[in-house]
Amino acid sequence: MSCLVLEVLKPSVACALQLRATATGDSRRALAGFLYRHRGWDTQKAPVRKYSANMERRAGGGIIFRQLFESISSTYTYLLGDPESREAVLIDPVLETVDRDIKLIEELELQLKVAVNTHCHADHITGTGLMKKKLYGTKSAISEHSGATADILLSEGDSITFGKYCLNVRETPGHTDGCVTLVAGDQSMAFTGDALLIRGCGRTDFQQGCSKKLYHSIHTKIFTLPGHCLIYPAHDYKGQTVSTVDEEKKFNPRLTKTLEEFVEIMSNLNLPKPQKIDIAVPANLVCGLHDI
Amino acid sequence: MSCLVLEVLKPSVACALQLRATATGDSRRALAGFLYRHRGWDTQKAPVRKYSANMERRAGGGIIFRQLFESISSTYTYLLGDPESREAVLIDPVLETVDRDIKLIEELELQLKVAVNTHCHADHITGTGLMKKKLYGTKSAISEHSGATADILLSEGDSITFGKYCLNVRETPGHTDGCVTLVAGDQSMAFTGDALLIRGCGRTDFQQGCSKKLYHSIHTKIFTLPGHCLIYPAHDYKGQTVSTVDEEKKFNPRLTKTLEEFVEIMSNLNLPKPQKIDIAVPANLVCGLHDI
Repeated sequence: MSCLVLEVLKPSVACALQLRATATGDSRRALAGFLYRHRGWDTQKAPVRKYSANMERRAGGGIIFRQLFESISSTYTYLLGDPESREAVLIDPVLETVDRDIKLIEELELQLKVAVNTHCHADHITGTGLMKKKLYGTKSAISEHSGATADILLSEGDSITFGKYCLNVRETPGHTDGCVTLVAGDQSMAFTGDALLIRGCGRTDFQQGCSKKLYHSIHTKIFTLPGHCLIYPAHDYKGQTVSTVDEEKKFNPRLTKTLEEFVEIMSNLNLPKPQKIDIAVPANLVCGLHDI
Repeated sequence: MSCLVLEVLKPSVACALQLRATATGDSRRALAGFLYRHRGWDTQKAPVRKYSANMERRAGGGIIFRQLFESISSTYTYLLGDPESREAVLIDPVLETVDRDIKLIEELELQLKVAVNTHCHADHITGTGLMKKKLYGTKSAISEHSGATADILLSEGDSITFGKYCLNVRETPGHTDGCVTLVAGDQSMAFTGDALLIRGCGRTDFQQGCSKKLYHSIHTKIFTLPGHCLIYPAHDYKGQTVSTVDEEKKFNPRLTKTLEEFVEIMSNLNLPKPQKIDIAVPANLVCGLHDI
């Protein structure tokens, strides 16, 4: 069974069986280096962020979690790591902050397994390609509906595992066709990309945008998560860092409206064209032009 | 016993006895409104951020926690609330984002008990005064060594309680004489103001700044906290949101040096004068000019 197949196993299988990818070819060499580095970890544990209590309680340890911000495009990048295996996942890295993120990954003695994009961004160039060049063994991932190339093409129900943790893929199209929401295995956290933002949502006026689809995605795939589930979006423009499903169901000024009202709102936003769209989208179709 | 006295009881007393302030005068009226609003909370609980596991585990519930960012001065404001009593504390509010913060406090159905500054800021005007005007019953707090006026003047060992939680005051001068670090009762989180920043520290070249004092403060008052204790600073300029004591002890490029090297580094930063210092400092001496 190939490594790729194992990476995208359905969560029910991947999480229940605690599968680990069988190393072949390049990934075997990466794993060898990984295991070598792993030896010192019992005595030199990197600091653990005690965060996201549900995930932590069930696992009996503390997930390593970092929210990182790129101020030009107001993008959040998320680093999640397993303190025991040191395997990690990076969500939505930005080209300009790759060095900052790599430094942190190295300081925390993490092994970046997957750099995943929630969708093909129009406002910034992804850092996944450069991340792959600089961190040997890292694989890129994005939705199979994004039209982009990557090592792992994700679809509904796939799972990205890192140590004892996993992120489950829910397809949430509407901002683009290839938008996914990544949900922590215990549903304590959801990384909603540009589908659901804090008290807002992604625009739907370019790149296959469709407000009806977005409304449906959010109501059926995100608002059906537990009320306490933390919402971590790909962007925030007002200095907010996190919300919850309950809060957005109650206070989101757009998603609390009817479908018809929502479509009307989204049709009249009159937003300017994203400054970087003509550079960013073509670049992001190939992991930020730095694909290897 | 006055309300003020109760607010600043030593933590060993305040936390152990779970004291509540006895309402007198204005604060009695505020408390009446508070209790009235409180009635609906059992059935209409605001979403709880499950965060900071230690505090949560010991308390048996989830503290409400929000990190908020003000982008002009790169300031972090922190909202902490008790999901049962709904009492809350706001750390380092910024004048320009007071309305955002109040909206969130109201949406989460919190009762803001104290708006506290970690020190007299030089780079932005505090929102405590305006917050007091807009949220009846809120008290302002700052170090007694800051030279500023406030309802509560804090000193070493004082405690700010909110419901079943408390923040303990550690004096950490060096950036200014009146800098404090606010430490969660279970030492799972520390709000370090401008004393310790992520991979950095506050400057020491104005407002009673003294690099020797700062080095001593950080090493004796912050680096003596548990290694896993989360560090939440007043600012970050690189998109980082949190660190830990262990990480800063290991990777902080300034604080890992000897005292002599640290003093040398701090003497040669050659930083420009903060743009707002001549407006901000006088304003912040009276709760941001909006003192009532």
